[in-house]
Amino acid sequence: MSTDITLRPIGRHDIPQVLAFIRDLARYERLEHEVLASEQDLSEALFGEPRYAEVVFACLGPKPVGFALFFHNFSTFKGRPGIYLEDLYVQPEMRGRGIGRRLLEWLARTALERRCSRLEWAVLDWNAPSIAFYESLGARPLDEWRTFRLTGSALEQLGRRESPDS
Amino acid sequence: MSTDITLRPIGRHDIPQVLAFIRDLARYERLEHEVLASEQDLSEALFGEPRYAEVVFACLGPKPVGFALFFHNFSTFKGRPGIYLEDLYVQPEMRGRGIGRRLLEWLARTALERRCSRLEWAVLDWNAPSIAFYESLGARPLDEWRTFRLTGSALEQLGRRESPDS
Repeated sequence: MSTDITLRPIGRHDIPQVLAFIRDLARYERLEHEVLASEQDLSEALFGEPRYAEVVFACLGPKPVGFALFFHNFSTFKGRPGIYLEDLYVQPEMRGRGIGRRLLEWLARTALERRCSRLEWAVLDWNAPSIAFYESLGARPLDEWRTFRLTGSALEQLGRRESPDS
Repeated sequence: MSTDITLRPIGRHDIPQVLAFIRDLARYERLEHEVLASEQDLSEALFGEPRYAEVVFACLGPKPVGFALFFHNFSTFKGRPGIYLEDLYVQPEMRGRGIGRRLLEWLARTALERRCSRLEWAVLDWNAPSIAFYESLGARPLDEWRTFRLTGSALEQLGRRESPDS
């Protein structure tokens, strides 16, 4: 059970723990080599102006054991913002207690409070346990959509073309 | 050629045209029945506080002929925001002039100016001409990820559970 777990938004002093969780999650996703973020980056993004994202911690007593990092997206069809969950992570030894579900409930409640039309997130296609869990909550995959990403030298090449626009 | 096309951020007086473009795009995507947005919704999202999204118009002379609506997402691995392109649309009679490419160039340039790590968007999997165009720009599909969405009654059910959190 998760009744001994509390959720709370983070403060600036939690930044090192956020970065530690991001690295833990990357390791689980077999993507640890891709983590370039620094504490300074996270401090600017989570507490700067503009603020690009928000974080909530799940804690056992005072100890953070999981987190969710999210930001707002926007549905032009609904005309309303949504919440996009970028990262959800619970420490391995704390799994099976409903902590991930508690974090998702918190996000769903926050979405309703902010008049958001939906809550979305992505999962790696080999992560069958998570997919089964998400489907049990009533989430549906958007499998008719493909996401494209432009980054690195391809982004720089497109963005640095000569253009008549100021 | 697109040399007679200019790009400009929108003002509040452009909201009716934004909504008209959103409806045109929905018709092209065979999703017109899903458009619930009002001018009031868009005015709040594009010019309210917080601002949830931004729009740039492509114009032939004074006449808007296409648009892009975007917002910021955030990469925890990069520690940097990105730009997410939610809608890109060019009027059918204006296609083939490089206007979509001009809008993407503007977005890529804006991403670089704002120190964003990437530019992302989604495309319907049957839209082969667009997919070929995006790949020609160096964009890569994130096909190992599946996006899940929780909305409507499933969102309300999860968000309204009893919880010990305040």
